[in-house]
Amino acid sequence: MKRLAPFLLAVCALGANGPALMPLPASITHGQGKLVVDGGFAVRFAGYSDVRLKHQVSEFIARISRQTGMPISGGERAVLTIDCKGGGADSPTLGEDESYQLDITAERARLSAPASAGVLRGLQTFSQLITQDARSFVVPAVHIEDRPRFPWRGLMLDVSRHWMPVPVVLRNLDAMAAVKFNVFHWHLSDDQGFRVESKLFPKLHELGSDGKFYTQDEIRSVIAYARNLGIRVVPEFDIPGHTTCWFVGYPELASAPGPFRIERRFGIFEPTLDVTSETVYTFLDGLLGEMAGLFPDPYFHVGGDEVLDREWRENPAIQAFCAKNGIKNSLELHAYFNRRVQQILTKHGKKMIGWDEVLAPGLSNDVVIQSWRGQKSLRDAAQKGYRGILSFGYYLDHMNTAAFHYQTDPLAAEAKELNPEQAGFILGGEACMWTEYVDEETVDSRLWPRAAAIAERLWSRADVTDADSMYRRLETVSRWLEWSGVKHRSEYVRMLDRLAGETPAPAFGVLADSVEALGIDVRQEARHYSSLIPLNRLADAARPESESVRDLSETVGRLVSNPTVHRQDMEAVRVQFEEWRDNNDLLKPLIESNFLLTEVAPLSESLSKTGVIGLQALQFLESGERAPAQWVTQQTEELNRLEKPQAEVVLAAVRPVRILVGQAAGLSRQVGDLPHK
Amino acid sequence: MKRLAPFLLAVCALGANGPALMPLPASITHGQGKLVVDGGFAVRFAGYSDVRLKHQVSEFIARISRQTGMPISGGERAVLTIDCKGGGADSPTLGEDESYQLDITAERARLSAPASAGVLRGLQTFSQLITQDARSFVVPAVHIEDRPRFPWRGLMLDVSRHWMPVPVVLRNLDAMAAVKFNVFHWHLSDDQGFRVESKLFPKLHELGSDGKFYTQDEIRSVIAYARNLGIRVVPEFDIPGHTTCWFVGYPELASAPGPFRIERRFGIFEPTLDVTSETVYTFLDGLLGEMAGLFPDPYFHVGGDEVLDREWRENPAIQAFCAKNGIKNSLELHAYFNRRVQQILTKHGKKMIGWDEVLAPGLSNDVVIQSWRGQKSLRDAAQKGYRGILSFGYYLDHMNTAAFHYQTDPLAAEAKELNPEQAGFILGGEACMWTEYVDEETVDSRLWPRAAAIAERLWSRADVTDADSMYRRLETVSRWLEWSGVKHRSEYVRMLDRLAGETPAPAFGVLADSVEALGIDVRQEARHYSSLIPLNRLADAARPESESVRDLSETVGRLVSNPTVHRQDMEAVRVQFEEWRDNNDLLKPLIESNFLLTEVAPLSESLSKTGVIGLQALQFLESGERAPAQWVTQQTEELNRLEKPQAEVVLAAVRPVRILVGQAAGLSRQVGDLPHK
Repeated sequence: MKRLAPFLLAVCALGANGPALMPLPASITHGQGKLVVDGGFAVRFAGYSDVRLKHQVSEFIARISRQTGMPISGGERAVLTIDCKGGGADSPTLGEDESYQLDITAERARLSAPASAGVLRGLQTFSQLITQDARSFVVPAVHIEDRPRFPWRGLMLDVSRHWMPVPVVLRNLDAMAAVKFNVFHWHLSDDQGFRVESKLFPKLHELGSDGKFYTQDEIRSVIAYARNLGIRVVPEFDIPGHTTCWFVGYPELASAPGPFRIERRFGIFEPTLDVTSETVYTFLDGLLGEMAGLFPDPYFHVGGDEVLDREWRENPAIQAFCAKNGIKNSLELHAYFNRRVQQILTKHGKKMIGWDEVLAPGLSNDVVIQSWRGQKSLRDAAQKGYRGILSFGYYLDHMNTAAFHYQTDPLAAEAKELNPEQAGFILGGEACMWTEYVDEETVDSRLWPRAAAIAERLWSRADVTDADSMYRRLETVSRWLEWSGVKHRSEYVRMLDRLAGETPAPAFGVLADSVEALGIDVRQEARHYSSLIPLNRLADAARPESESVRDLSETVGRLVSNPTVHRQDMEAVRVQFEEWRDNNDLLKPLIESNFLLTEVAPLSESLSKTGVIGLQALQFLESGERAPAQWVTQQTEELNRLEKPQAEVVLAAVRPVRILVGQAAGLSRQVGDLPHK
Repeated sequence: MKRLAPFLLAVCALGANGPALMPLPASITHGQGKLVVDGGFAVRFAGYSDVRLKHQVSEFIARISRQTGMPISGGERAVLTIDCKGGGADSPTLGEDESYQLDITAERARLSAPASAGVLRGLQTFSQLITQDARSFVVPAVHIEDRPRFPWRGLMLDVSRHWMPVPVVLRNLDAMAAVKFNVFHWHLSDDQGFRVESKLFPKLHELGSDGKFYTQDEIRSVIAYARNLGIRVVPEFDIPGHTTCWFVGYPELASAPGPFRIERRFGIFEPTLDVTSETVYTFLDGLLGEMAGLFPDPYFHVGGDEVLDREWRENPAIQAFCAKNGIKNSLELHAYFNRRVQQILTKHGKKMIGWDEVLAPGLSNDVVIQSWRGQKSLRDAAQKGYRGILSFGYYLDHMNTAAFHYQTDPLAAEAKELNPEQAGFILGGEACMWTEYVDEETVDSRLWPRAAAIAERLWSRADVTDADSMYRRLETVSRWLEWSGVKHRSEYVRMLDRLAGETPAPAFGVLADSVEALGIDVRQEARHYSSLIPLNRLADAARPESESVRDLSETVGRLVSNPTVHRQDMEAVRVQFEEWRDNNDLLKPLIESNFLLTEVAPLSESLSKTGVIGLQALQFLESGERAPAQWVTQQTEELNRLEKPQAEVVLAAVRPVRILVGQAAGLSRQVGDLPHK
């Protein structure tokens, strides 16, 4: 077998109608033929095995069985041999060896790995390789050698702003494992809710959660579930700010007098721990100790972001403490707090993680900095010998495109200045899902499939950067993820259906398919949201990125590159534009009778106008005439207007039309410019 | 306010684009205007209240909030006043007063009920009344007086043949409550699995369930959940047959020597309790006592159906026992067993329920007979003073139409012969969901929306029998149920998507929409199923009854009644037939590349042929010419052939075409004949 270079060619060959691998493995070599996966499929352990591996193999077989419709009874002949050299740690561990090798021929498959973590990753790759042909399910003959680029590939989920029940967490852990994420960062407390049962300080969850919290048994079961998938669970308790809900039960910990109520608004709020009070450190010693016992991972996140200091500045006792101890300002006071917290964590056997703001002199160098500000923070930290992970550029709640996240690299920008040794301090990155505008019903569609692009960025080689290839594979992976449990595709249908009300409304689906949801920047300005406002409008149902518009843009791209060759594309585009043009007339009666849809009336008109402009541009293209400059200017202005956010969504349909108008004006094609939205 | 008669007129007026009530209330009178439901909506208790009522009101408000997108903060002004005269029992109880009265004006609403059960039912009706207009959500001014026709309105779920996890049970309890079912009959043990943790006899669930069982904590939480919804939970442990899995752990209870294994096949099997053994009665005393403590309802189901007696006949010790005790045959032996079991249940404070077969001399008259055989059993039982419930005609796993179940009445057929006093012994009925060919992914779509038609049969007045009205409301109710949690609509999309494989395939959706799933009678003959065979083929995804074909049949019905008036209908029907005609060409490439879809190739051809015949028939209709007799004969034969089951589904698309061919032949329209499938 010989290694093909560049390996992307091999993958593209796989990609067309075959398996879509994501993240792309480090290397792939193609063999001859296909391995048949049928009811006789059986797995044999040649080397090390344990309960976790056996469990995951049985899950793997159940998944294949569900996908293929065949009972996998485990025939006599081992089709897949798993050769694990050693056990690895009991629980997933930072930096453990996740490499694996897959050898698949037309006769058999062998998955080899130095440790169990690699077996877990390799089984996911094997699952992605299964496709069907006319006679059976098959896996192409390939040789894959694979290992991650970064050891820390995380997803952060905020369960405080909106509560996320256990089943939501579990199905998202499955999806994470499917694309080889290995850290679940669980943002468990914030102003809007304290989400873990505390036996030592029960008023935290009793008074600070509206009854929406995880019991300690539930936490343990989630951790066990994640462990089986090779995913570490890192809890976050954000201190000293973001703690309003703590003070409902324990006002004595605050820097200002109460009473306090659970915060319902979103934003940055003033209630802050009194970091000069020994009562607070005694409390934290108890609470963090209790939580350190509950969460086995050695890393423990204490937030530390967005600390407002007005309460510190206005509290005479706190100011007196600072004067007495030579603490010159709030920054130094925060640094003092972090040193104390790090000591407490060390005592309980934990290493501290914090957001950018925690980095200040005096912290011991086992702290890990998670950067929401950019690669600059990571560079600064690495130069001082601190490790870091990147989240800047990976905020999925901002509703950027998958391509935008895909081009963000932990080692790019300022981090490029690091020498190789320093670069080693950059452990990886974490996708973040803050949930001000996301609830248990919409979280899947805000995470998936876009998070998979970040997973690829963090796992695959640095030179894997082709967004077109990523999108081609992402469409398949998105469907595959839906089958594996997350509901980003089916909840869309369900929510549109509910919004439309008593009678089905295909025209509403046409509108929804042509728009994209916007993120926190638009929504926080849009209207007065709080955690009590239901999230069930078009902006909540709509996808962050429209697959159908992206496909249409691609078609238009082909079309403008050579209009005469692509007659069929021309027809397809025309049909779509006509559907848009006619859609407002179909949708209007529903909008006029449906209170929830009133806000989409201008949007629906905009879609029809977009269709009309598209049809005109198509006519120029067809006739070969160049459009008059005045027409181009007018239409471009109109498109700019149509693309302005309405009802907290953007009309993605404008994008392919813009390409055509540009072409009609005799401009070069712009399809390659992936919009930021 | 004056009572309108017949009340159905009022409901139809509501029905068009307004609320669809199901089950229909006993009486409705219309008022003037509409009550606005907005963020200021608040509920006040004028009379009795308790924890359960408060909980259900808060669930009710959360549901409205989700549906309307408005935070229901509870304004100052009470919009809905709940006037409950008394508490009623702590738990739902057979025969409790479920009546209620709703008075809704443009200014306010009042829900009055003699007991808390009525409040629960009335809140569901109020929810169904909410629709949206252009400015807000509204409830029409109405006066409703309502009470159930039968006190026992149940749904039986078999969790043994296929395991149903707790969340599946919970969301189906929500759906049951939405249409006023009040008994959840939980078929917890059968040959294929014992699904409850037993602390006394742990080998029952440890060796008899593949690890798929409910813990006692889970059972308690399900019962509590049901209680809050006003639903009784009646457990069934089927004895003395249907017990194979018991003997895996306890072979000493069997009538023949082991060893035994959990049964994977479906059917009726021979392993049977040794009903002559005192060890068995000691065991049952322990087990039923333990379960009697776990399930608070006074009724306890012991199955008793389909007892094969070969093992009894061939066991000399059992035969010796019979000879000694004057037991002449297996029927008498079964009757002896039932008397002993009833004594055990009485000792533990329970009343016994059993299937038809248990009825034999010597049972005390608190036994309840559940009839799977027909109204004759119930008549016989009632004439002897035993109470009964009907399940014959309500087997949802048989995949009949909603209309078929709807026309089945517990007091029809032989039960008509009963005098009023005897008729009072008929407590109601139960929809049954046996799960040989149904799993956790498909159960919702096999239950809903059809179960709602049975719920109406059991709640509404005996003269509510208009299937057209039922179907009109059922379409809305189906969507409403989906929003409330069951997934019968969204799982359909998801399963089709998975079946189609890597790329979306709208043509597969067109085919799936045109077929209907078949039930146990066809599937048990079709191929060798077992509990290990995944249920993920078209037959599993397809709906039991196609909404779109039914709508099309209605359109065709209008069309043939007056072709010249209904030009628009003509066009709509033509477009549908053309889509069918062209569909096979579109779908063929997918079928040919997809192993799982091979079986649908003939079906896809059949759909195209059906479209072609439909278009020809349409042409005759349009031209006003009568079709030649030979053509009619040929097409009718062809349609008969096309309607034969293929791939375990039936081509529903044939039905509207049949109407048109009949019309073209000059025959009278047949649209009123609701097919049985």
